[in-house]
Amino acid sequence: MEGLPKTLAALSRALRERDFSPVEVVGALLKRVEADETNAFITVTGEKSREAAARAEKEILAGEYRGPLHGVPVALKDLIFTEGVRTTMGSAFFEDHVPDHSATVARKLEEVGAILIGKTNTHEFAYGPTGDRSHFGPTRNPHDPARITGGSSGGSGAAVAASLCYGALGSDTGGSIRIPAALCGVVGMKPTFGRVSKHGVFPLSWTLDHVGPLTRTVEDNALLLNALAGFDLEDPHSADRPAEDFTRNLERGVRGRTIGIPKEFYFEHIEDEVEARIRETAEVFRSLGAWVQEVEIPNLSQTLKAQRLILAAEAYAVHEERLKTAPEKFGEEARQRLLDGERPKAHRYANARRQGLLAAREFDAVLESVDIILTPTLPIPATRIDERETNIGGHEERIPSALTRLTGPTDLTGHPSLSVPCGATAAGLPVGLQLIGRRFDEATLYGYAYAYERAASTQAL
Amino acid sequence: MEGLPKTLAALSRALRERDFSPVEVVGALLKRVEADETNAFITVTGEKSREAAARAEKEILAGEYRGPLHGVPVALKDLIFTEGVRTTMGSAFFEDHVPDHSATVARKLEEVGAILIGKTNTHEFAYGPTGDRSHFGPTRNPHDPARITGGSSGGSGAAVAASLCYGALGSDTGGSIRIPAALCGVVGMKPTFGRVSKHGVFPLSWTLDHVGPLTRTVEDNALLLNALAGFDLEDPHSADRPAEDFTRNLERGVRGRTIGIPKEFYFEHIEDEVEARIRETAEVFRSLGAWVQEVEIPNLSQTLKAQRLILAAEAYAVHEERLKTAPEKFGEEARQRLLDGERPKAHRYANARRQGLLAAREFDAVLESVDIILTPTLPIPATRIDERETNIGGHEERIPSALTRLTGPTDLTGHPSLSVPCGATAAGLPVGLQLIGRRFDEATLYGYAYAYERAASTQAL
Repeated sequence: MEGLPKTLAALSRALRERDFSPVEVVGALLKRVEADETNAFITVTGEKSREAAARAEKEILAGEYRGPLHGVPVALKDLIFTEGVRTTMGSAFFEDHVPDHSATVARKLEEVGAILIGKTNTHEFAYGPTGDRSHFGPTRNPHDPARITGGSSGGSGAAVAASLCYGALGSDTGGSIRIPAALCGVVGMKPTFGRVSKHGVFPLSWTLDHVGPLTRTVEDNALLLNALAGFDLEDPHSADRPAEDFTRNLERGVRGRTIGIPKEFYFEHIEDEVEARIRETAEVFRSLGAWVQEVEIPNLSQTLKAQRLILAAEAYAVHEERLKTAPEKFGEEARQRLLDGERPKAHRYANARRQGLLAAREFDAVLESVDIILTPTLPIPATRIDERETNIGGHEERIPSALTRLTGPTDLTGHPSLSVPCGATAAGLPVGLQLIGRRFDEATLYGYAYAYERAASTQAL
Repeated sequence: MEGLPKTLAALSRALRERDFSPVEVVGALLKRVEADETNAFITVTGEKSREAAARAEKEILAGEYRGPLHGVPVALKDLIFTEGVRTTMGSAFFEDHVPDHSATVARKLEEVGAILIGKTNTHEFAYGPTGDRSHFGPTRNPHDPARITGGSSGGSGAAVAASLCYGALGSDTGGSIRIPAALCGVVGMKPTFGRVSKHGVFPLSWTLDHVGPLTRTVEDNALLLNALAGFDLEDPHSADRPAEDFTRNLERGVRGRTIGIPKEFYFEHIEDEVEARIRETAEVFRSLGAWVQEVEIPNLSQTLKAQRLILAAEAYAVHEERLKTAPEKFGEEARQRLLDGERPKAHRYANARRQGLLAAREFDAVLESVDIILTPTLPIPATRIDERETNIGGHEERIPSALTRLTGPTDLTGHPSLSVPCGATAAGLPVGLQLIGRRFDEATLYGYAYAYERAASTQAL
């Protein structure tokens, strides 16, 4: 089946035109999944997927077309609850856990006819950016199996990059969608806080968690977000915003519009090859007629510190009972990190939350003078599995810290942040570009990313 | 000048009709303030007030009428910054502090022509519901000088009740507007969180603080809120809501509409005389044609506990530096209470914040089936100055805890809550009725309160 369409958008057209049937597409993908060496999936829904494909096929043939995701195979990070399908959080605690209800996002995808083909591997309880600590084994980077996918949504990154599905959902608390997107060379969107429901998604940190899509192309990503976004009474953090079409700006172009590049923080301690790729993207935008100007976003180190403190405290709150009753069931790394979250004082959390509000206002202020902010997604390309220390031009840093350093701030402020592939290192490891936009303005991010993707031909496939 | 109008609304009409001049009104009030025995004011703006009155008089005579607050004397709690006028927070730290800028609410009142006549006494740093701990001495209840006004906005409650001004602003973090309103027998509104700017208001607890008006009547309160409400970029918690007229529902009546009375929590451990007054108000509403039904709001004890933990942690965060560098400058009670806020852990704060979100949803759910929720404002009437223990029908409780028990929950959830006088005990101590409404629906609260006030003739004057 090498003839399968490469993008979700192309598959969607082919399914609608009946050039392909959902059954053959799902069959072909399940074969690929069988041969997968990235360990992208914890659970493959095989028979259920085939049945869903048969239903979709019947509906499409009967003219009951549900829209661009009808018959499209997708995967869900294995902390998104699926009724009747095991959901493990990558943890021994839940290795046999079969939820009795589905997450809102799982239901939404089902309603528009998407076909679940499996549950993707996740760093244990989503608490780690490397993707190599899961009760079900590490995920491996499709570009180099000795290297990490990044995490925590590592299985979703690998599955999309290895063409095992046409899109996958992840969750992002400190970068967990954008990190695997960047390291695996796919498109990953952390939407605005509140944009996508978290009901039925196992929490890592209530006030920082975001759910969003990973896909091969920008258009595919916008199509998936169309199905995911929307107010949900079941999620106390859900924002009551009207539905919109996130593909509406794809053809809008960037001529005469303005991009901000931060002077500090985002370009400190980053690898030369990464910096080179990012500077090249700025040139591409300039060549497309955009203005590129320097901007200043103050206090980002404090913002990152605040994000990390809140994450630690909330993760401890989520897992307190388990840590007390069955500490041995956690992996060593997760347990240690969780226990660290017991110590901070409430008044530090209060100050951190305050810093989050101030930081959000600072991003808002910068985004009044520019349309989007352009940064690297990560300071480094994929490191080796199990590796934990890195040296970036003389700067020693723990890899988990390096991986979340540039993504963490907007998990605290809530601004939408999109990672887009922007070439590779000499060793062939993907590099990711991060675009940060105004709150609830994902459509503009997609517009810029689409223009860039076209001009630079950097699609994952 | 016994002929001075008794309400803000009546004064407003008299000023517009030129039956009174701002200069004579301010002069008369300043005389009353001189004779005040409640210790309502920390600073009286005397000469400045007279100058402002002269300006207002000139403008009104010249036909430059600025609206219903033009020429109306008001007072501000002494933690609301006033450019060039001492602002002390009731604390030795700030006894000579003259701000170089005004709070947004102070500027707004000035813009509509209101005349500041002084800064009202506050419990030290607003951290106490009794109003009897201030660097400038306790405030005394106009109904019994041996008793507390309640706090922390005790000076505002006393000043309005003693007719020393036509309205005063307070702040409410655990009940600090509604408590003195109830104990002094005036109307006090804690608006929806985000409705009124806190820029330039000294914080007690960033995520719980609210600013709002105390007045003699419901109509007066709505008129003041009209001038205060509105989005303010300078306040990171400000909500971007359109301006509205809060008097618009005053004549709407309650016939056929529905009031909810909670079964639990709000009627546990309250004094018989208080309960009797509240049950009587329900009868008044019934006689006006409203439906009164029981409602259930779960987990309120947890909500209150969460509100108290967040308050303690944030108050410590606000005062950490002062506690370390000059602990002796705090009063003993404030220092001890602040120091208690150092201890809680961040994960407890995280859980408390979560509980706040869930509680907000629970209030929202109840307020889908009823228009408003009716409760007592307080379980007890005014206690004696310096008294700290009470016994409510056999239930032993610290007075500060008793005073904030029924007001605290909606400081956490953000729902607007209005305290309205509803008669008195046999000893002549005022009792307050609390009306809780939908978020950003203060107008409905005023509508109900106005209907009640008319029917029961319970105006402060």
